[in-house]
Amino acid sequence: MTLTSTTLHDQAKAANTASRKLAGISTEVKNAALIAIAEAIEANRMSILRANEQDLEAAKRDGLDFHMMDRMTLTNARVKDMADAARNIAALEDPIGEILEQRDMPNGLHLERVRVPLGVIGVIYESRPNVTIDIATLCLKSGNAVVLRGGKECILTNTVLAGIVKNAIESAGIPSDVVQFVETTDRALVKEMLEMDDVIDLMIPRGSAELVKFVGENAKMSAITGGVGVCHTYIDAGANLEHALKIVVNAKTKRPTVCNAMDTVLIHQSVAREFLPNLATEFGVHDVELRADGRAMSVLDALPGGAKVVPAKSDDFGTEFLGLIASVKIVDSIDDAMYHIAEYGSKHSEAIISENTEAIEKFLNEVDSGAVFANTSTYFNDGAQFGLGAEVAISTNKLHARGPMGLKEITTYKWKVRGQGQVRE
Amino acid sequence: MTLTSTTLHDQAKAANTASRKLAGISTEVKNAALIAIAEAIEANRMSILRANEQDLEAAKRDGLDFHMMDRMTLTNARVKDMADAARNIAALEDPIGEILEQRDMPNGLHLERVRVPLGVIGVIYESRPNVTIDIATLCLKSGNAVVLRGGKECILTNTVLAGIVKNAIESAGIPSDVVQFVETTDRALVKEMLEMDDVIDLMIPRGSAELVKFVGENAKMSAITGGVGVCHTYIDAGANLEHALKIVVNAKTKRPTVCNAMDTVLIHQSVAREFLPNLATEFGVHDVELRADGRAMSVLDALPGGAKVVPAKSDDFGTEFLGLIASVKIVDSIDDAMYHIAEYGSKHSEAIISENTEAIEKFLNEVDSGAVFANTSTYFNDGAQFGLGAEVAISTNKLHARGPMGLKEITTYKWKVRGQGQVRE
Repeated sequence: MTLTSTTLHDQAKAANTASRKLAGISTEVKNAALIAIAEAIEANRMSILRANEQDLEAAKRDGLDFHMMDRMTLTNARVKDMADAARNIAALEDPIGEILEQRDMPNGLHLERVRVPLGVIGVIYESRPNVTIDIATLCLKSGNAVVLRGGKECILTNTVLAGIVKNAIESAGIPSDVVQFVETTDRALVKEMLEMDDVIDLMIPRGSAELVKFVGENAKMSAITGGVGVCHTYIDAGANLEHALKIVVNAKTKRPTVCNAMDTVLIHQSVAREFLPNLATEFGVHDVELRADGRAMSVLDALPGGAKVVPAKSDDFGTEFLGLIASVKIVDSIDDAMYHIAEYGSKHSEAIISENTEAIEKFLNEVDSGAVFANTSTYFNDGAQFGLGAEVAISTNKLHARGPMGLKEITTYKWKVRGQGQVRE
Repeated sequence: MTLTSTTLHDQAKAANTASRKLAGISTEVKNAALIAIAEAIEANRMSILRANEQDLEAAKRDGLDFHMMDRMTLTNARVKDMADAARNIAALEDPIGEILEQRDMPNGLHLERVRVPLGVIGVIYESRPNVTIDIATLCLKSGNAVVLRGGKECILTNTVLAGIVKNAIESAGIPSDVVQFVETTDRALVKEMLEMDDVIDLMIPRGSAELVKFVGENAKMSAITGGVGVCHTYIDAGANLEHALKIVVNAKTKRPTVCNAMDTVLIHQSVAREFLPNLATEFGVHDVELRADGRAMSVLDALPGGAKVVPAKSDDFGTEFLGLIASVKIVDSIDDAMYHIAEYGSKHSEAIISENTEAIEKFLNEVDSGAVFANTSTYFNDGAQFGLGAEVAISTNKLHARGPMGLKEITTYKWKVRGQGQVRE
């Protein structure tokens, strides 16, 4: 099949038309469709795995690396995980129809602000095929139609999965047009998809920082730009240094490749001589390279052993390392720390370690990030850890949704006004 | 003063830095500053009026038309209105600090989702000088710093007003940097201001449809695009036609130049022969020109007198007339009406007139507009009429805020997470 942008626009337009019906479909029917998807995934396990095997063979021929192949690979267990994920979404509360506020006006008009779906969500994603199920089910539950554009590596797997989803929802009585899968991987179409603001309400990129940036810069509709976290932890004068060490090590080493991993430690000068040597020792144990500013260097120079320590270059501040590297800087005050964060941060996740209530409140109030933490690890910035039930993305936008986005965060509202013939004088 | 884009960026950056302090300032201090603004406006009435007179003289020399001059003109009464507006904002509830949700997680972390200011709001506006006070006070109350860029016609008036605001808030103990007024009217700077997404979080255009469009297309930061309303009223088979006539006339004629004025009447074929003659008569009384589709023409052709009726051209549907013109179309069903609205509407305000509950609910649920009305006039789509206390704009965006935007709608939230040393396993 040769897909032109006209065909893609037709698909998005069909999603848009179907989305208006989906907005009125009951929670029971949506949940039945989600269960049907879970069952169909299990029933079609063999054909899913066969398609995945073909994708993997092609990937091997193309010389893709081990990490990429691993992300692509489905197993019996991973297929079951996808089915379970669909069942989990069915179990979540339906955000649609919630009355956010209502009032009766003196002229007798009744006003309701009601939560409604956004309409059509476009998703551009990369290698993991489970994203197809993940996003299709999140959108279905939140009443949104979706246009899915997956990476070329998993095209066969994704095509099978999308077909399963479409059949399952159709069988539950929902028009299958609410899920559109783009069966081509021509890169030029991505750019064209980003211009279809007449039929797509929101774009969500899922993948590399490069993809997120491209979508953010080129989408004519709104886009969730997130996933890039230059995360700071500030060790205050009043910190419990034992907690500080445990938290910094957790935030840096538990999963260094994710966006909520810590990048920079800011240390109040009054505790630097006590804290830095222990930090260097612990980072040494975990193979973390320390990139230290001049003042931190002068403390660390005197130390035998511990972590690898190198002088920080200017771009070691404001960088998301996505690996076992951390920059460290000594500051004179909490204000200096907050100034540094404002200059170099990405408004994602920042923490203060302190026993001083005033310092904590100042930091939590004045640091302008989606999630701010006191005496705990930035690695907690996550939909599941925040109790949202599901995570669509972690937003660093300031409008609409901030931090972890769950089902509610891919909805909007409308005002419904009911009268009995009132006119405005 | 020659203002370069560097100077403008410095102003926006100063606003950004000051905004972090403003976020933590108490309601009492903000209200005191608002009262101080009101008092300073009254105390400086004469110098405001003198500056305004100079602007008006320049406008006369430049040959500006009567409507423009009228919008620019301040009088004793209008100065008092500005002071009263500032007092009204002081009396509104402070949106900042509201805890939108909170929970304790099993690991002991305490989570709060707290309403916070957006940061820095940029406003580009045209002739009315009261916008300077209006927006500065709305931003102050909602904890946002603001960069004001008014039109060149009122530059002297606006400069005086901005100076009054800055002095008054400084006297109340708030850094005057939170209000920045751009003292030049060089048009090239508008474009550059729209690129300052490093220091401005949200742009609000206040003025012509052309300005709104320009800002929407060129702003690198988020922008409120609204104010353009192609508004429909659908007269259902089950309508009370007496209500329908009264509502349609109100929505079209009460203030035809505003965005919530009705543009198109869609009439169910079963009531067209009864309704259209009365509509033509009433529109005749109010000097409204009717642009009728073929089927409506064939009914109206047979009528003596009434409104001026001409055959609708294709672009009479989907046009915001902003004057005493309405297009009219006969439809076969509510679905046809909703299809027309989806094709030609601007997602602003649409109404159904019907006594049939099922039709009303279908319309309110499936029409995808910021505000949907049953048995009342689209002219009610307004912050004050919705009980929001103040109106910043009427948004036709689907993300962040929809419909009338009050104080809450120019805020965002952040997650505050408080722990006692927890790390994530």
